[in-house]
Amino acid sequence: MITRKIAILGSTGSLGSQTLSVVEALNRAGHNLSVVALAAGKNLELLAAQAQRFQPALIVIEQTRDLNRLGRLLRPYWSGEILAGGEGLHAAVTHPQTELVVHALVGATGLIPTLEALQAHKTLALANKESLVIGGHLVKGKGSPIIPLDSEHSALYQLLQQREPTEVARVILTASGGPFRTRALDSFSQITVEEALQHPTWKMGKRITIDSATLVNKAFEVIEAHWLFDLPYEKLDVLLHPQSVVHGLVELCDGSVLAHLSRPDMRLPIQYALAYPERVASLVEIERLDLVKQKLEFAPVGRERYPAFWTVIEAGRRGGTLPAVANAADEILAQRFLNREISFSRIAEGLEIVLGEHQPVQNPSLQEIWEADRWARERAGKLSPYGVR
Amino acid sequence: MITRKIAILGSTGSLGSQTLSVVEALNRAGHNLSVVALAAGKNLELLAAQAQRFQPALIVIEQTRDLNRLGRLLRPYWSGEILAGGEGLHAAVTHPQTELVVHALVGATGLIPTLEALQAHKTLALANKESLVIGGHLVKGKGSPIIPLDSEHSALYQLLQQREPTEVARVILTASGGPFRTRALDSFSQITVEEALQHPTWKMGKRITIDSATLVNKAFEVIEAHWLFDLPYEKLDVLLHPQSVVHGLVELCDGSVLAHLSRPDMRLPIQYALAYPERVASLVEIERLDLVKQKLEFAPVGRERYPAFWTVIEAGRRGGTLPAVANAADEILAQRFLNREISFSRIAEGLEIVLGEHQPVQNPSLQEIWEADRWARERAGKLSPYGVR
Repeated sequence: MITRKIAILGSTGSLGSQTLSVVEALNRAGHNLSVVALAAGKNLELLAAQAQRFQPALIVIEQTRDLNRLGRLLRPYWSGEILAGGEGLHAAVTHPQTELVVHALVGATGLIPTLEALQAHKTLALANKESLVIGGHLVKGKGSPIIPLDSEHSALYQLLQQREPTEVARVILTASGGPFRTRALDSFSQITVEEALQHPTWKMGKRITIDSATLVNKAFEVIEAHWLFDLPYEKLDVLLHPQSVVHGLVELCDGSVLAHLSRPDMRLPIQYALAYPERVASLVEIERLDLVKQKLEFAPVGRERYPAFWTVIEAGRRGGTLPAVANAADEILAQRFLNREISFSRIAEGLEIVLGEHQPVQNPSLQEIWEADRWARERAGKLSPYGVR
Repeated sequence: MITRKIAILGSTGSLGSQTLSVVEALNRAGHNLSVVALAAGKNLELLAAQAQRFQPALIVIEQTRDLNRLGRLLRPYWSGEILAGGEGLHAAVTHPQTELVVHALVGATGLIPTLEALQAHKTLALANKESLVIGGHLVKGKGSPIIPLDSEHSALYQLLQQREPTEVARVILTASGGPFRTRALDSFSQITVEEALQHPTWKMGKRITIDSATLVNKAFEVIEAHWLFDLPYEKLDVLLHPQSVVHGLVELCDGSVLAHLSRPDMRLPIQYALAYPERVASLVEIERLDLVKQKLEFAPVGRERYPAFWTVIEAGRRGGTLPAVANAADEILAQRFLNREISFSRIAEGLEIVLGEHQPVQNPSLQEIWEADRWARERAGKLSPYGVR
């Protein structure tokens, strides 16, 4: 029987909600998982409903101004503590009852609860990409275990269990390739927002869908894998795999290749992280993978088709504040594309321009990371929509 | 650095010769593997050359009548002991210096050195299929580790390392499907020996190539996996996979599927077995697997196309002396097909007839296994080529 006391940051998002559904499924099967704290942003109604159902000791909301309204929504059903903002997140991750922190907040500031959870020796189930992308050097070596929550890194984490570093020749992340994998290159200038939002495999938020079309998302995943698995970039590769069935591959020193396959369902890596180091039977209704129905294909990541990917990989290799700049600039550029202010191709151009202008700081402090983030946002916001700076 | 003292049974065959090439490659890389004993059948010249090169303490030849000739071939270069037959094999596997027995003899009598090696607490790298097919119940639980040498079981062995039995939902072996995977079913009666010997992936001996065309070979591998991994037949499946890149898959209880991929090169599982439990860099020139160049496809094993497969699986499920009968009858029937005495389809029919007539003995002794083997050979030899018994 698994017993876990969990703080969930980002509980009202897709991953947070699915985490709660996996918690309930595991408890129905006789395991004993309890929720110590729930933290969310603006969706007060859903947060209140979750609190009523899971009875955490602590609830955290993003804005202080929402405290009263949340209190009124909850008081009939629940009598714990309500806090707001960074103080609340700190209380959630360092709560004496918390054993496992599920961190599904989005954005660069997610780095702070990551560092706080690790400093407090909590196990961290991490979905916040920015923690490792912008602050990998601060997170690395903190000692406390980090179990990745997204499907690609979870697949690799599972394949790399109990493996000596000398055994590992190469680690391959897969990418669906997004909606433009086979589109004629000369029509990229006409890509519309609606076309870019048609992701072939996963249903996700808008920015992450754009990042999947540019493959910037996958470049960030490579940077995450670099820190998570302590692997040099020379040992990290990406292959396009439009079927999204193989989530990761590990090539061993003797030429053997191990692959992790599953249906694309986030509840699988969530359950793996909640049960880790055990592995328990699937308790949510997940359709079994049927290999007979699929061809599995792999292709390299083209430099012409995915220029933003290669630009961000290079930012990862060079390190310092460059990944933070890439992350911030990409967020602004993707939003400006969604706002129809710039073209799809301009996202890649903008990343190259902003990264090229940045004076990187090596081994940056938190303060230097925020400064780089702020600078990049401002610079990307001012970028001309046209082929001039 | 790996150090191993090895006895190689079947050293002049394809697998034995490749084992010696891997031994040399590992030694060139600074490891220290030495050959204690070499055992072979009739190829005296090659055996003498191997002995000269590897200087084993003991050489074993199949027939007593070859002792003198082998002695004459060897004396200028070598001065160890030469023995013949079962006595020699016993001396090789139980030799006090022997740590690892590489058992690549072909045939049912290979069960005896398997049992002797395990009783002498030697690690056994096993390629002799019959040991587990006909004598799995005698081999099971002997305590000493068995590391499989063929690519499919080696793949599964690697995937199942350090995994709890409760984690494993299903184990899938792959089969190329042989030369008749897509042939029109109504033309099976016209299959020629030459067509049956065209295996799409592996170059092998004649019987095993016929067994790959009927998929009887794969049914035997399922029986081996049953004993090797202590898995019920309900958890064992076979999928056709014409590319022969994925050698095995393990479906875990949470819906994750792990796959082992490599180029089809026997030196990979050989090296894995020699180095186990370590894994060392590939030292022979093995081309790396390039996933971009291949589609990976999977298909179920059709009952009409591969009737012999399903007949032998059923023999495995029912157990006792039935797998020994299947093995012996198949050997005779495949040879009679190669002799052009019976049609290709008659192999499957013959297996069903011979197995149907056999009175199985459960949990048979060695003597009962040999008796079943002898009976099946005689019965299969007398089988009418036509649709009568």
